[in-house]
Amino acid sequence: MDITDMAQRIIAGERRALARAITLVESARADHRAQATELLAALGQDKQALRIGLSGTPGVGKSTFIESFGLMLTGQGLRVAVLAVDPSSSRSGGSILGDKTRMDVLSRDPNAFIRPSPSQTHLGGVARRTREAIALCEAAGFDVVLIETVGVGQSETVVAQMSDLFLLLLAPAGGDELQGVKRGIMEMADVIVVNKADGDLKATALRTQADYSGALRLLRKRPQDPEGYPRAMSVSALEERGLPEVWEALQTLSDWRRENGFWDQTRAQQARYWFEEGVKSVLLAQLETPAARQALAALSDAVAAGEQEPAAAAVAFVRDLRA
Amino acid sequence: MDITDMAQRIIAGERRALARAITLVESARADHRAQATELLAALGQDKQALRIGLSGTPGVGKSTFIESFGLMLTGQGLRVAVLAVDPSSSRSGGSILGDKTRMDVLSRDPNAFIRPSPSQTHLGGVARRTREAIALCEAAGFDVVLIETVGVGQSETVVAQMSDLFLLLLAPAGGDELQGVKRGIMEMADVIVVNKADGDLKATALRTQADYSGALRLLRKRPQDPEGYPRAMSVSALEERGLPEVWEALQTLSDWRRENGFWDQTRAQQARYWFEEGVKSVLLAQLETPAARQALAALSDAVAAGEQEPAAAAVAFVRDLRA
Repeated sequence: MDITDMAQRIIAGERRALARAITLVESARADHRAQATELLAALGQDKQALRIGLSGTPGVGKSTFIESFGLMLTGQGLRVAVLAVDPSSSRSGGSILGDKTRMDVLSRDPNAFIRPSPSQTHLGGVARRTREAIALCEAAGFDVVLIETVGVGQSETVVAQMSDLFLLLLAPAGGDELQGVKRGIMEMADVIVVNKADGDLKATALRTQADYSGALRLLRKRPQDPEGYPRAMSVSALEERGLPEVWEALQTLSDWRRENGFWDQTRAQQARYWFEEGVKSVLLAQLETPAARQALAALSDAVAAGEQEPAAAAVAFVRDLRA
Repeated sequence: MDITDMAQRIIAGERRALARAITLVESARADHRAQATELLAALGQDKQALRIGLSGTPGVGKSTFIESFGLMLTGQGLRVAVLAVDPSSSRSGGSILGDKTRMDVLSRDPNAFIRPSPSQTHLGGVARRTREAIALCEAAGFDVVLIETVGVGQSETVVAQMSDLFLLLLAPAGGDELQGVKRGIMEMADVIVVNKADGDLKATALRTQADYSGALRLLRKRPQDPEGYPRAMSVSALEERGLPEVWEALQTLSDWRRENGFWDQTRAQQARYWFEEGVKSVLLAQLETPAARQALAALSDAVAAGEQEPAAAAVAFVRDLRA
């Protein structure tokens, strides 16, 4: 594989080259990893897209929102990439973005690029691959990268750590269910969007929006927010209403953060975070070689049989591993 | 420090020697670690106490329960040790067991031994120290080791992985609050004990017990349980009622597990678990040396400044660390 050639084609905006490069960064093969590292170094980090993390539990209309929102952006001449972080995708057979028909129109838009989550059960692996895919999309000149995740478990933290802005999509709900959104998730959100503000649900959606506006005002003000943020809004992705307002709110926030140094500061902090996570995962990857697995299994049997004390055996194992 | 002498004193049941040995295993100093390993090897793993994990959120009357339950056991001539797993204790100044007056009578009982949680914010560190303290208590001939934790976060998993039996203590509550106990915690419990079945709360306690009995029946039967387990009971720790029944239920269960091989099987699985956790923590401890911290900080700065790509820098860092 000619890495210089691939880099040039990506920068020139060739979709097939981008798709092949993402397949390359998703590979676990050692030679592919080396090529991926070379490719990312060749592409540099000069071009920056607006990275928008997007979370929402199943049923909130995430696909419809991404399709409508993405088409609005491409309609303005912007190039939009959609990636996903879903550690469960290999088990469930692809619960999000696995099926391109979910975003039927957007997926056929020449200014959009949709890529399902890399199939890998380990969240750390999905995260590294997605971050590299984002870098590839930025080098390819995309203006906006949407990073979708499901609103369960740790994947939101992971997506927030690779996004400039974090959008939480919610469905209209009674006041009781406001409790259902974990405080930690709400504290991550820059903009909460209540979807399905249409038909019978419209009044409920507006009430839900008001509830969340109130809840957000109770949170401690974050330094990286101008007055009025984080904020709650409501939209109808189905009827394509409220979407320009969401885009404007996101732009206002990102402009303010750029002007006040928080944009660079956040990206720098995120780079540190992923470096440290990377160090840990490279250290632990030493346990994944066939020889290490075999030694680990043998010593684990001895420990289970009571022949060795677990903590002492662990120290001895690592000493041998490093020898 | 004469390790052979210390081992003999522990086996002879000298409380001061046990207390000093626990202080030794709690130390992070390299020479202390070496001595602790030597001590644990000298003591062996021949004597086994019944290890009972005990969890409950603040306010359920955990101290009162442990005091009453512990005194009942010492009254039967049994020797009882009480340890705690509380990763927050160094921050909060010791939220559980920090204050011995909490268990005033039990702490003065010659057949009881109470030790607060080692102060350490890192749960893994507390876990290793507590497991080693359990081994010391077993070598010292204690019949029962109670391992207390607060019902929040991951510490319950940690305690369950070092216990033969897991007891979940709950307060009387309306039907709605049944949802408050996470399914994962409930699945860990061998016996659920509703406390405060006295005075005005008695009827509510009995109803709560019935609710949990119903909920437990809905869980999938575990191979390590005889008919009727896991079960829900109610007690009044304050009035010392229901405690013999809880002790009988725990004994019945542990006898059945011993006879059917599940006791040994669980301990073997736990040894494997702690060995694997130990390997990870020893690997990651390489990052805690002053030299490693310094190198990590310098490279982190370069990554934050965009001079290096996080994943590639991580690979380079670990390569240098191993050189």
